[in-house]
Amino acid sequence: MASTAEHDAMRRALANALRGPRGVNPQVGAVLLSPGGEIIAEGWHRGAGTPHAEVDALSQLAPGAARGATAVVTLEPCNHTGRTGPCSEALIAAGVSRVVYAIADPGDHSSGGATRLRAAGVEVEAGLLADEATALLDSWLTVQRLGRPHVTVKWAQSLDGRAAASDGTSQWITGSAARADVHRRRAEADAIVAGTGTVLADDPALTARADDGSLLPHQPLPVVLGTRPVPDEAALRRHPREFLQYPGNRSAGGLAAALDDLRRRGVQRVFVEGGPAVAASFVREQLADELLVYVAPVLLGGDRLALDDIGVTTIGDAKRLAVASVTPLGDDLLLVAHPTTPPAAVHAAHRAGGHVGRSSSEGDE
Amino acid sequence: MASTAEHDAMRRALANALRGPRGVNPQVGAVLLSPGGEIIAEGWHRGAGTPHAEVDALSQLAPGAARGATAVVTLEPCNHTGRTGPCSEALIAAGVSRVVYAIADPGDHSSGGATRLRAAGVEVEAGLLADEATALLDSWLTVQRLGRPHVTVKWAQSLDGRAAASDGTSQWITGSAARADVHRRRAEADAIVAGTGTVLADDPALTARADDGSLLPHQPLPVVLGTRPVPDEAALRRHPREFLQYPGNRSAGGLAAALDDLRRRGVQRVFVEGGPAVAASFVREQLADELLVYVAPVLLGGDRLALDDIGVTTIGDAKRLAVASVTPLGDDLLLVAHPTTPPAAVHAAHRAGGHVGRSSSEGDE
Repeated sequence: MASTAEHDAMRRALANALRGPRGVNPQVGAVLLSPGGEIIAEGWHRGAGTPHAEVDALSQLAPGAARGATAVVTLEPCNHTGRTGPCSEALIAAGVSRVVYAIADPGDHSSGGATRLRAAGVEVEAGLLADEATALLDSWLTVQRLGRPHVTVKWAQSLDGRAAASDGTSQWITGSAARADVHRRRAEADAIVAGTGTVLADDPALTARADDGSLLPHQPLPVVLGTRPVPDEAALRRHPREFLQYPGNRSAGGLAAALDDLRRRGVQRVFVEGGPAVAASFVREQLADELLVYVAPVLLGGDRLALDDIGVTTIGDAKRLAVASVTPLGDDLLLVAHPTTPPAAVHAAHRAGGHVGRSSSEGDE
Repeated sequence: MASTAEHDAMRRALANALRGPRGVNPQVGAVLLSPGGEIIAEGWHRGAGTPHAEVDALSQLAPGAARGATAVVTLEPCNHTGRTGPCSEALIAAGVSRVVYAIADPGDHSSGGATRLRAAGVEVEAGLLADEATALLDSWLTVQRLGRPHVTVKWAQSLDGRAAASDGTSQWITGSAARADVHRRRAEADAIVAGTGTVLADDPALTARADDGSLLPHQPLPVVLGTRPVPDEAALRRHPREFLQYPGNRSAGGLAAALDDLRRRGVQRVFVEGGPAVAASFVREQLADELLVYVAPVLLGGDRLALDDIGVTTIGDAKRLAVASVTPLGDDLLLVAHPTTPPAAVHAAHRAGGHVGRSSSEGDE
């Protein structure tokens, strides 16, 4: 059983993790506690080329000062031999007597730290605040487990599931609070995906903007799915980053191939808001990890649906969702949901280029 | 300003109102307070042919005992001369010095009680807990104001607005908690409406049932809209009450005519759950006062929509809703909403037969 001090330390380690950059490497935080439960050092991973969180914390201490200490870490200490040796060995060498971590390392080459620690006589406890740590690392974990970026599919709809009136008009279905929320979330993504149908019909800028229309500091990479050319005058061509285009579901396995290529480019979080056909294709292929559905308190009727056909022909095949939250945003509601069917990995055919564990990407090799 | 004792008394009067039957007459409750704020009598309206709530309360007291008292009533005391004379006169005659009521009487013949009381020197305060009293009397108020029953339109849908998978299967889109809620609400309605399309496709029983499948004590009148005949073997024909059939929106003004006929039969609350076309027709004609949308956490895609076309062609004409509540029911969500466009009255052509105020129906004439 973790002590109250360890609980508090894990919360602090989770906060520490967020001080590091989000990128190809996981955000990890650590806190070292004295045998009496006092914080003696803290650390976090500052990105590729820098020490892991545990080693960062140990480096704050004089030699021998960690003897008998407890290390509280948000991710299982790694077990792979890189430039500095695995974290599990560093903890053992420092004389740490107990390790508490939140979630296991899913990496093929980096996992096994807990086993190594136990073999050296270190007490190990796993799973403390695992949900919080999982939420923190959702996109990184998706990459590790499924070999593709974490995919959020977003759409806005009327209560009756329409995206527009029958003449195609859709301006301001949702209100300003919902739109601001979308821009905030775009800015947290590495890439933003739209279909050519949406690009041609709506000419979206695919930028993340503040309330005053100015660009937010981080702009996701714009990605277009489909084979039709993007017009020379498209707003997308004025995006601060050059867009990428993939055939997407116009070719078999095209979505998975696009995701695989994006992962190779360092994209971990994909934000899909590309219209009813693109949203449906991600749902149909079980490549949606998270759904954001902004529901406006309005009825539209008509045939402009927010989500196209997803390949469900009979009720037993319905795509069931676990609703994580329902949040009022102005007059609108945001439902955050996760498909309950297991998400699809990217096929091996699209995964040439080796494993995707921490050892290949994190910085201490 | 109403005192704390008057607030408490109004809450008690609202509870008293519910002790009377819901029917063509309004549920009204009253509490009489001494000048010191003590409850000295209570009353409620027990239905057609019985005294109004204020008179019921006064009748508990010896002559003269109400002198200087405050009457707290959920509905403005009436001002029409019936068999026993108007309640406003009864209060004046009893020597009541102050009257506090929640909502005004909308009846053509029965309103004006407050004016009469003030003219006699009685202090009158209106509007205390008006929202609660309005909610209590919603269907009766709709009948008074619009000359038609209060209409609740219910449907169940997937998050993406579908009622069924593309092969038509729809069993258990929503869970048992949502279904139980529907049956409870059916039992509160005077009539339950379905279209012939639903009757032919789903063969619904249109009964209000308990969790164990047994019939609840009150069964709404089953009503079918459409011109196709109900098959001899339809479950509807085994309903404890004989069904009525109207052409509905198969004829111009047909929905309003059906509602008007139902009102004449004493129906004040109509529960519409008759399928996508019937739901859409009530929404389109602004004859829906309340919407109950049960949203299942599931995606279906396909073309089996929960709400058909509602005549909106451009976004500016969208039917906007005020969402009154969002309630989790098991895994499902229930949204209760009200259209923000003013509801439609029943046309004069369908209102032959005189006024619909309290004077013609309440029991003291």
